[in-house]
Amino acid sequence: MPLAAYLSEFVGTALMLLLGCGVSANSELRTSKGHGAGWVLISLGWGLAVFLGVTVATKSGANLNPAVTLGIVVSGAKEFAKGVPVTLPNVLGYIVAQLLGAFVGAFTVWLVYKRQLDDHPDPTSKLGVFATVPQMPGWAWNGLCESAATFVLVFVALAFGVHGPTTGLASLGALPIAFLVIGLVASLGGPTGAALNPVRDLMPRLVHQLVPIAGKGSSHWGYAWVPLVAPIVGGVLGGIAAGPLL
Amino acid sequence: MPLAAYLSEFVGTALMLLLGCGVSANSELRTSKGHGAGWVLISLGWGLAVFLGVTVATKSGANLNPAVTLGIVVSGAKEFAKGVPVTLPNVLGYIVAQLLGAFVGAFTVWLVYKRQLDDHPDPTSKLGVFATVPQMPGWAWNGLCESAATFVLVFVALAFGVHGPTTGLASLGALPIAFLVIGLVASLGGPTGAALNPVRDLMPRLVHQLVPIAGKGSSHWGYAWVPLVAPIVGGVLGGIAAGPLL
Amino acid sequence: MPLAAYLSEFVGTALMLLLGCGVSANSELRTSKGHGAGWVLISLGWGLAVFLGVTVATKSGANLNPAVTLGIVVSGAKEFAKGVPVTLPNVLGYIVAQLLGAFVGAFTVWLVYKRQLDDHPDPTSKLGVFATVPQMPGWAWNGLCESAATFVLVFVALAFGVHGPTTGLASLGALPIAFLVIGLVASLGGPTGAALNPVRDLMPRLVHQLVPIAGKGSSHWGYAWVPLVAPIVGGVLGGIAAGPLL
Amino acid sequence: MPLAAYLSEFVGTALMLLLGCGVSANSELRTSKGHGAGWVLISLGWGLAVFLGVTVATKSGANLNPAVTLGIVVSGAKEFAKGVPVTLPNVLGYIVAQLLGAFVGAFTVWLVYKRQLDDHPDPTSKLGVFATVPQMPGWAWNGLCESAATFVLVFVALAFGVHGPTTGLASLGALPIAFLVIGLVASLGGPTGAALNPVRDLMPRLVHQLVPIAGKGSSHWGYAWVPLVAPIVGGVLGGIAAGPLL
Repeated sequence: MPLAAYLSEFVGTALMLLLGCGVSANSELRTSKGHGAGWVLISLGWGLAVFLGVTVATKSGANLNPAVTLGIVVSGAKEFAKGVPVTLPNVLGYIVAQLLGAFVGAFTVWLVYKRQLDDHPDPTSKLGVFATVPQMPGWAWNGLCESAATFVLVFVALAFGVHGPTTGLASLGALPIAFLVIGLVASLGGPTGAALNPVRDLMPRLVHQLVPIAGKGSSHWGYAWVPLVAPIVGGVLGGIAAGPLL
Repeated sequence: MPLAAYLSEFVGTALMLLLGCGVSANSELRTSKGHGAGWVLISLGWGLAVFLGVTVATKSGANLNPAVTLGIVVSGAKEFAKGVPVTLPNVLGYIVAQLLGAFVGAFTVWLVYKRQLDDHPDPTSKLGVFATVPQMPGWAWNGLCESAATFVLVFVALAFGVHGPTTGLASLGALPIAFLVIGLVASLGGPTGAALNPVRDLMPRLVHQLVPIAGKGSSHWGYAWVPLVAPIVGGVLGGIAAGPLL
Repeated sequence: MPLAAYLSEFVGTALMLLLGCGVSANSELRTSKGHGAGWVLISLGWGLAVFLGVTVATKSGANLNPAVTLGIVVSGAKEFAKGVPVTLPNVLGYIVAQLLGAFVGAFTVWLVYKRQLDDHPDPTSKLGVFATVPQMPGWAWNGLCESAATFVLVFVALAFGVHGPTTGLASLGALPIAFLVIGLVASLGGPTGAALNPVRDLMPRLVHQLVPIAGKGSSHWGYAWVPLVAPIVGGVLGGIAAGPLL
Repeated sequence: MPLAAYLSEFVGTALMLLLGCGVSANSELRTSKGHGAGWVLISLGWGLAVFLGVTVATKSGANLNPAVTLGIVVSGAKEFAKGVPVTLPNVLGYIVAQLLGAFVGAFTVWLVYKRQLDDHPDPTSKLGVFATVPQMPGWAWNGLCESAATFVLVFVALAFGVHGPTTGLASLGALPIAFLVIGLVASLGGPTGAALNPVRDLMPRLVHQLVPIAGKGSSHWGYAWVPLVAPIVGGVLGGIAAGPLL
């Protein structure tokens, strides 16, 4: 069991969620310094969150996302990273590490923004710090949006090698995937907030459910399956499309 | 017929328009998360759309734009990309691929933002998701603006090699052209919205004409020839100016 | 005594504080051109301030921050930079240079923005040009926020080599640490403003205390120990976590 | 006479001013798409204008600024670029090329934004498209601001090699100087708008004087000497400080 790779996925996903849900908190909550900074800050913050996660997850190939992991599986690639073959145990190990990392990252955001969360008057904004909240209800159009955006993410990352971090000064290698995420959130995040990653929505929503927050509203579990399933659909299709180009 | 290169132009242009018209939709439409984020988001989003398109269009030299393709022709360059000579069939093949790609990209934006488009009250903003809408009517000054900006784009891309993508970690090579586009949209996009590319305006406008959108207004075909012709004029002049520097 | 390395820390920290407190002044003060530009400008400005400082501090390894210096000590690293061993005198020399540099940088911001500072009506904003001002009072949650953010900064900088500037065109090597800072300020700066660095808060606060500013209020020394101690705690923990990865 | 180098300075400065004054026009004028986008757009736009200018001015070492040229002279450097020695004729040739380039760039902005300029109601904003307009009158504090910012620009560019463009994919080499300019405008642009370059203020102001603009006010020549002299003072001091580090 390549524990170092699982640990790499765990730490990378945790730091990604810490900065990602962190920027949502800074923008959403009225007593945050960044309150009202809007979609430029959100796009930039989530892109840099991915930059950070990819930079630290060198030993696992920086999937940080079950949609990417499953996309790699269907693409026919042989390895997640040097010395980490694509096997069922490793797929499960990666996904468990991503789930745990996402929980820890989102939980830390709760700690860092605890008083701002308690102070904020609107329950929907409180939820928006953690989970994605679509602008309009329903699953079909929102799912289409999530699937399309994740398809682009996984197809481009796998087929054109923007994926794959390196260390040292070459951590510049993490920039293309960060720019891709900034672009996807800026452009396709309008209807749903662009989860693009099943654990990015599921685990923060679970944190929202579990932790005490003054005036907390519903965790909207009825919508939770959309940002869980749709990115997987998009990622698998992206991996299939990328396969012949590998 | 170098079908791989044509496919490369098609996919690159489709992804570029998906993110490009996507960021316009996110900014323009009142039920988008990015509504009102303004020109910083627009400039950034279009620049990253070009970054994405150039990153994936490695096999064709990433023209993605008939003004660039024609600029290359008049510059006297011998090849669009390795193994793809500058011949009349290839020029036509590239432009057809760009037209089709732009249509598919803009059509996908309609799908992703369908409900936001239907909900928005103002027909001009709906059109602005797809086509460029000048701030003041007329063709002379707007055409001058489009020609000047496209001249800079093509002259600099050809003569100073900011054009020309590479794959893998070196997709950093797509950054200079992205920064150039961010700068051009930020600086010269004020009067017209900076089409800079005939297919970027024509095909989304056609999508706007064809798809059903609640409360849709005119597709303003009377203006459509300006962002079609003016970028070609600018691009050809840019190619002529770049020629001696190749 | 490696005076060149101390001088490098001094100049780098001075330039970092000049641009850093400068962007705070531009955003906070009503007669500045950037007044009200908000958290995107703040995040970007502080990140580019770090970029500048790291670019010039090549000879010392660009610590620019006692939390980084102490993190390096506990990580077990042998050298701050080529030819500069980790010894007690060098630790003290670095910290003294950082303190002096921070003072000079913040003092220069006072000169540059003197009339804007005198004109501004609100004493808290005047202080906010120099020192961090938490959104809510108290030390526990604010200290947690500062410690968590500095932990990430130091852990990632040390363990994944995003730290370590180079000169010439390779000053691109300073970009990853700049992007990390932009991300940390954007995401975790909401509650406290993200000092992340003991000298970044202490010395500008001292400048605020010492210089004449029309309508100046309190320098809030009661809070000053939080952004002094909490980043050191986070940095030391970050260095301990990074140690096994060196 | 190295005419190719002079032409390089001319083209680089013209394109820099085209994008630079262009972004000011887009932000200032009420019928521009970017109206009100604020200081984030301004900082980004001027930084990318410098990126563009440096990218194209490879043959001359991309001074684009008499303060840089004079800083190089006093630094004791032997060449502006490969094969272009630091001689009095070349200094004069560079400055003349920069003056002419700045005029052409600013004149083109007038053409591109002609109708927006005529439509805008406020004469001070019209002037602000071309020349820098200080937030408060007087020469001493404004001159200090301009000198300090230009000192940093020239000192860092010369001593730490962020200056010096390369061509092709390596045009990434123009990024550090662009990031430095974004940072300087974001941080130190608050009081004066950060000319940082004598020709950047003088020649656009001359264009403002000469061209017809409906409702045009004064060109404020009384202030013009400040952004002319102060950057030269800062640049020369920066060159002197950089000399021993070359």
